Amino acid sequence: MGKVTTSVTTMSLDGYIAGPEESGFDLLFRWYGDGDVEIPTASPDVPPFRVSAASAELIRREWGNTGALVVGRHLYDLTHAWGGRHPMDVTTVVLTHRRPEDRPEDDENFVFVTGGIEAAVARAQELAGEKDVVVNGGQMARQCLEAGLLDEVGIALVPVVLGGGTRLFDGLGSAPVRFDGPVAVVEGEGVTHLRYRVGK
Amino acid sequence: MGKVTTSVTTMSLDGYIAGPEESGFDLLFRWYGDGDVEIPTASPDVPPFRVSAASAELIRREWGNTGALVVGRHLYDLTHAWGGRHPMDVTTVVLTHRRPEDRPEDDENFVFVTGGIEAAVARAQELAGEKDVVVNGGQMARQCLEAGLLDEVGIALVPVVLGGGTRLFDGLGSAPVRFDGPVAVVEGEGVTHLRYRVGK
Repeated sequence: MGKVTTSVTTMSLDGYIAGPEESGFDLLFRWYGDGDVEIPTASPDVPPFRVSAASAELIRREWGNTGALVVGRHLYDLTHAWGGRHPMDVTTVVLTHRRPEDRPEDDENFVFVTGGIEAAVARAQELAGEKDVVVNGGQMARQCLEAGLLDEVGIALVPVVLGGGTRLFDGLGSAPVRFDGPVAVVEGEGVTHLRYRVGK
Repeated sequence: MGKVTTSVTTMSLDGYIAGPEESGFDLLFRWYGDGDVEIPTASPDVPPFRVSAASAELIRREWGNTGALVVGRHLYDLTHAWGGRHPMDVTTVVLTHRRPEDRPEDDENFVFVTGGIEAAVARAQELAGEKDVVVNGGQMARQCLEAGLLDEVGIALVPVVLGGGTRLFDGLGSAPVRFDGPVAVVEGEGVTHLRYRVGK
């Protein structure tokens, strides 16, 4: 079984994964468009990324290792289901209170789980086989961490101070939490990739 | 004239320089005591640091470049004036509303300025000559950044999530703010040193 990880979570220097009222994405995700190496995405709504060579190598490795995603319903709705397929080109498990009416059946693009974070991660692990499960979004990351399900935290730290917004582990009840590492540091352009292991 | 910098500001992965109600310092400053290389301090109240070789090299370089400090009255009081001399062994400019009664005169250890952040930094620059001025504390860093006085931000990023407390640039009115870099990355043990340049 692979790891459960946040993979490449873009975060501001002051700890926000989104600015106030879902703002700041232009500043946070600038590194996705500023480089020379093109990374195609599987989403019809998300144009190819253009990142630095160092970031590209890291993203390709991460995406290649990823067997399934877990996201929250909020992100699924906010992105309009990425137009039908997640950019990372894997089956996306959506944790929700209620299955969307326009998706009566699970398919290779989206699987809906209503039984909580443990059930969502377990379903994603079935789908991922030997590969990793990536959890996406601050609330999913927090729930996984609190449930003891998270193995690694991958952060793409960007040099911007947003001053407010949504935190990576917003509302974490079990703080303080220590991690081990960084077990890896990769310098991109306009971004620093850091990877930490969750102490068990 | 040297730079104005935050030098080596220890920050949690979620952006806090102190936990809730001045807690969390044991977790934040663990890297100061976990290593093999001893760094003596000039404060009678602060025992020598014991840091990794990589952190020691960085601290020695930073301290060697530092000609004067700017701190706020809060930190001065909280540390009881570091027992008489700041650990970094330089004159410390204290920005305050009112000079403390037990210090009627400035001396080589402490200089008091009541005229605001610009006056405090200008006084420190006089004292520092060709060397750098280090601003210490979240409020001082924020005031310097807002006044356009800050050249570099040095962060010692530690892998702990505190979940609340005092932010590096708490209450920044001018957010979002972009930095350039990191212009330097040094991997210590239990800490990652990052340095950013403030865009002018």
